[in-house]
Amino acid sequence: MTISVAVSGASGYAGGEVLRLLAGHPDAEIGAITAHSNAGSRLGGLQPHLHALADRILVDTTVENLAGHDVVFLALPHGASAEIAAQLSADTLVIDAGADHRLTDPAAWEKFYGSPHAGSWPYGLPELPGHREKLRGAKRIAVPGCYPTSSLLALTPGFAAGLLEPDDVVIVAASGTSGAGKAAKPHLLGSEVMGGMSPYGVGGGHRHTPEIEQGLSAAAGEQVSISFTPTLAPMARGILTTATAKVRPGVDAAALRAAWETAYADEPFVRVLPEGQWPATKMVVGSNYAALQLAYDPHAGRVIVSAVIDNLTKGTAGGAVQSMNIALGLDEGAGLTLQGVAP
Amino acid sequence: MTISVAVSGASGYAGGEVLRLLAGHPDAEIGAITAHSNAGSRLGGLQPHLHALADRILVDTTVENLAGHDVVFLALPHGASAEIAAQLSADTLVIDAGADHRLTDPAAWEKFYGSPHAGSWPYGLPELPGHREKLRGAKRIAVPGCYPTSSLLALTPGFAAGLLEPDDVVIVAASGTSGAGKAAKPHLLGSEVMGGMSPYGVGGGHRHTPEIEQGLSAAAGEQVSISFTPTLAPMARGILTTATAKVRPGVDAAALRAAWETAYADEPFVRVLPEGQWPATKMVVGSNYAALQLAYDPHAGRVIVSAVIDNLTKGTAGGAVQSMNIALGLDEGAGLTLQGVAP
Amino acid sequence: MTISVAVSGASGYAGGEVLRLLAGHPDAEIGAITAHSNAGSRLGGLQPHLHALADRILVDTTVENLAGHDVVFLALPHGASAEIAAQLSADTLVIDAGADHRLTDPAAWEKFYGSPHAGSWPYGLPELPGHREKLRGAKRIAVPGCYPTSSLLALTPGFAAGLLEPDDVVIVAASGTSGAGKAAKPHLLGSEVMGGMSPYGVGGGHRHTPEIEQGLSAAAGEQVSISFTPTLAPMARGILTTATAKVRPGVDAAALRAAWETAYADEPFVRVLPEGQWPATKMVVGSNYAALQLAYDPHAGRVIVSAVIDNLTKGTAGGAVQSMNIALGLDEGAGLTLQGVAP
Amino acid sequence: MTISVAVSGASGYAGGEVLRLLAGHPDAEIGAITAHSNAGSRLGGLQPHLHALADRILVDTTVENLAGHDVVFLALPHGASAEIAAQLSADTLVIDAGADHRLTDPAAWEKFYGSPHAGSWPYGLPELPGHREKLRGAKRIAVPGCYPTSSLLALTPGFAAGLLEPDDVVIVAASGTSGAGKAAKPHLLGSEVMGGMSPYGVGGGHRHTPEIEQGLSAAAGEQVSISFTPTLAPMARGILTTATAKVRPGVDAAALRAAWETAYADEPFVRVLPEGQWPATKMVVGSNYAALQLAYDPHAGRVIVSAVIDNLTKGTAGGAVQSMNIALGLDEGAGLTLQGVAP
Repeated sequence: MTISVAVSGASGYAGGEVLRLLAGHPDAEIGAITAHSNAGSRLGGLQPHLHALADRILVDTTVENLAGHDVVFLALPHGASAEIAAQLSADTLVIDAGADHRLTDPAAWEKFYGSPHAGSWPYGLPELPGHREKLRGAKRIAVPGCYPTSSLLALTPGFAAGLLEPDDVVIVAASGTSGAGKAAKPHLLGSEVMGGMSPYGVGGGHRHTPEIEQGLSAAAGEQVSISFTPTLAPMARGILTTATAKVRPGVDAAALRAAWETAYADEPFVRVLPEGQWPATKMVVGSNYAALQLAYDPHAGRVIVSAVIDNLTKGTAGGAVQSMNIALGLDEGAGLTLQGVAP
Repeated sequence: MTISVAVSGASGYAGGEVLRLLAGHPDAEIGAITAHSNAGSRLGGLQPHLHALADRILVDTTVENLAGHDVVFLALPHGASAEIAAQLSADTLVIDAGADHRLTDPAAWEKFYGSPHAGSWPYGLPELPGHREKLRGAKRIAVPGCYPTSSLLALTPGFAAGLLEPDDVVIVAASGTSGAGKAAKPHLLGSEVMGGMSPYGVGGGHRHTPEIEQGLSAAAGEQVSISFTPTLAPMARGILTTATAKVRPGVDAAALRAAWETAYADEPFVRVLPEGQWPATKMVVGSNYAALQLAYDPHAGRVIVSAVIDNLTKGTAGGAVQSMNIALGLDEGAGLTLQGVAP
Repeated sequence: MTISVAVSGASGYAGGEVLRLLAGHPDAEIGAITAHSNAGSRLGGLQPHLHALADRILVDTTVENLAGHDVVFLALPHGASAEIAAQLSADTLVIDAGADHRLTDPAAWEKFYGSPHAGSWPYGLPELPGHREKLRGAKRIAVPGCYPTSSLLALTPGFAAGLLEPDDVVIVAASGTSGAGKAAKPHLLGSEVMGGMSPYGVGGGHRHTPEIEQGLSAAAGEQVSISFTPTLAPMARGILTTATAKVRPGVDAAALRAAWETAYADEPFVRVLPEGQWPATKMVVGSNYAALQLAYDPHAGRVIVSAVIDNLTKGTAGGAVQSMNIALGLDEGAGLTLQGVAP
Repeated sequence: MTISVAVSGASGYAGGEVLRLLAGHPDAEIGAITAHSNAGSRLGGLQPHLHALADRILVDTTVENLAGHDVVFLALPHGASAEIAAQLSADTLVIDAGADHRLTDPAAWEKFYGSPHAGSWPYGLPELPGHREKLRGAKRIAVPGCYPTSSLLALTPGFAAGLLEPDDVVIVAASGTSGAGKAAKPHLLGSEVMGGMSPYGVGGGHRHTPEIEQGLSAAAGEQVSISFTPTLAPMARGILTTATAKVRPGVDAAALRAAWETAYADEPFVRVLPEGQWPATKMVVGSNYAALQLAYDPHAGRVIVSAVIDNLTKGTAGGAVQSMNIALGLDEGAGLTLQGVAP
């Protein structure tokens, strides 16, 4: 079975990673590769690591160019995908790596993005309770944000099992710079980021906050509120998420561990590490894996969960391909690597 | 006024940083430079950045070699400094960069370090309430740990002003690798640390936890308990601390901001940045500055404070020199730079 | 066709990379995984990025454990492989990632390694003239060093075509730290290597010098002598080689370009980039590709060639797997990726 | 003696480093701080590491704002400084960190820069033969480029002593990204530069080539031609220069060593390291030192010299301040640190 796939936003980091994965996908045939200002350029000049596709020419991101494929990946600035998706056939699988269709609550969307809500699509994080089923046969998929992917994988088992208090969650995450995209901004220059760390979007304003709360609340069956602080780390790829929550009275370390291990026992791409081994982002560079570890701190009455993903792979393009595979009934792991590239 | 200073542990990172600062101190004359296994070596082979001292020969770390100076810096593995200090004259200013004399509670020491408590010395963080006075004329000074320095600077104003709940503090900190010292361990190899992040000591077991709680509890006038997670970042120097606490009912953003700004209004080395500017570790590399910013997140009911220091300067050697200056009645900033080396 | 493969030295970087590639090889079945001091450990604790193999247990590096496989990879300290290889069946394909069997000249071996010469094996760089044929059906293969791989790919076309002077070659190469191995040495600590560069082995003493000269001389049909300076760069993977040579009288830019393009026109893993595009090591991280560019500097009368490889992939394990594929008659690219992992 | 100093281009890296050094200069009083598009901004928002100057406001780069100071530093795009300098009083010391006045040969200027030559000024590299004398009392100084500084320090002693062939010089240098400035360009993003190396300006076209040849030719007393290849390294600061030349017949290792050691015996900021110790850029970060080492490779008939500087300090702002000190008769090392900030 050969699937024809078009990829938009191909000059950016998310689009490049989608192409990297599709180039190794046994069932995918890469059709149109589109961009905006870079239309007309060789891909090799923009994504020089994609050797097998170096001589492909980017075309304009238009409905005409994207139409006629089995699958269309949209890696566009938010606000741009709804309009394009509306003009693509309902039989085409449209996978949006942007934010437009992630939030179910129009009010939350409008508060954090300041524009009308475009509606919500099935959410491409199959490891959340009940989500894999919703992705089977879906024709529209919203790819989660990278911080929500790691945060939801970190904390969902505890909330789904009723072990955690809903109003005392703190998440601090460190992301590689590719998460900020390829637009040249002074604070993202190598001279600025190498050798240092800094926070950003502190105090509740980060757009991933409502997305994380949406997922945790669904798992908990009650409103969960979080404090989320992202930081920028001197690395190109990877997210390390440190997530903590107060545990409910009577919950002990064994119950916590059992909840997480049970939740992910059959997952191909999420792993609770053996006790005593802590995750490191380099375990998962270029891979679709998420590695977790947790500890119960009785002194603080908290569980601390560390989760690592590659923000471009499991956090964006890998999760997108995994969701595509599920939607189309392919092997869920097709085109995805289990092994990270390390050291 | 010329002060003769001996420096032990001179082949390590803390000792090297003390020497770097003393080489630029207008009143200090560097006497004995001592080491353990590296005694007999040229300093230039071990600390090749200390050009002015390159031809100095390291001698053994013995009481004989350290005695006879006005000031003795001890940068030794914990457990080693108490015995040496006991044999140095009571008139000698002994500044211990190690952990031995930081904790006032013998039970906390024994729980976290597993050895008998050596007693506590005046704590070299002059910005804490009442501490500068205790350092004046002191002959024994315990240099704070690097994580406690940034964590206490981050949260003390809020506790001292009675604005924060004592039992819901979460601190996540990212440190450069120099904080782990110069002993060659596989997980600290460049190949392992470049391009990745990882947590360690998760779940309450880190030895800096009781030290941070000690300082916050003293400021609060009640027992403060924290959840503390350190992470290792791919940079040589710097700590970014993200510290959050629940605010007491009725406390608003203005009250929070006022508490921090008032606390540090007259401090030469601690700065609350203008609103909207967030700290970055590269602001303070090689400098004795601590830069802070805070935000009130009404959604989570929390204050989030970001603090950056250079772990080797304000976090170790700079704090030590600052404390020495206070103890001896010198200009508090002598030998210390305000400017970081950036980019 | 399923090939059983044993991998020795599996706790090091070369062994880990062999395993990473074999885990994705369609025809390989990973048998014994061996180590020396780490025998008995879980692979997941030593190579935590190899998720699919995490629960495999390392066994001792003995002939007994390695025997009985179709292929044996030796990633051992130099001096160790000859003895083991001698005891393995002549029908077993033995691929030595170490130096023991690279040099054909016993005198050169003894001068640079200070031990008796173990003999030479077919040299696993199929892109050199005539080498692919020698690898077909071979049962013993010596994997080239990483610096020789990039240096020989950079300059061989010019020497093979008779365009370059043999006595005025200068090569300066920058390598990532994984090339120095996983043994914990102080100068390889992250604190030391991050943010800086340094040379080593300057002045002709580096053991890769005779290996590079051997290959270039064979291509030139006369003795080529080089000046080779390796430097250590703050990155985990990759080699950037800058290689220059004087061009013979009458040779022009077009002749130079034609020689390189012709030499690699049919190569699956070596690419001369389009004019004006220069290679960067990040193009090839995790990939078996070598990317080249050249320029003629008429002012200096020199050709300058830039070549990039991933030292662990094309420079070691990828070249080894490529050679294995050729020796066994498999698809030359099986298990190897064309795409780098970037950014 | 208090010197009033104005600094233009203060929002860039060169201007920022000048300010950092002047902030610690015992005789300098920082007057106007000027910029182009950032005029009107707080310095603290643009150079957040310059804590002592954080509240200073940048003014426009105009003759009016720069006039009336004893010293004016110009850190402007090339082409901009000649016009401004012409309008400043002949009694004002004008120090140009840009390229405009470095080359003595108008034809070379026009070939590499494509604009009319503005004339040449005394060249601010006091370690070159006869240069310190020319700087004493000078009122116009051209600050050398960063690559020329390290390349000329590396090779001048051999040419001045007549030990080297003039037509076979190869220089390969690795620079930190701050050398490329603060303008946001995609290839300088942290995501692009971290973890990789790349060459640029290959084949004789780099503008520093004629500047290096000018200095070497002056020392040699004959025309020296070089092959120069710069590369971009994943670090913010520092240059590692590998420079090699053929030695004249009859020259041996002792003669080479003696030439270099004699040349720099009395220099305060250049050091030939003890035999066997090789330079590393981290030795000199933030410092005005240049550290060198050399080796004679009899096999290739070449001397190889490694030189390290901080491109922003000795390579730009430090060299500028050192030259200012000489010109004004101040202590040559005032405001300059000998010690690097390491690790």
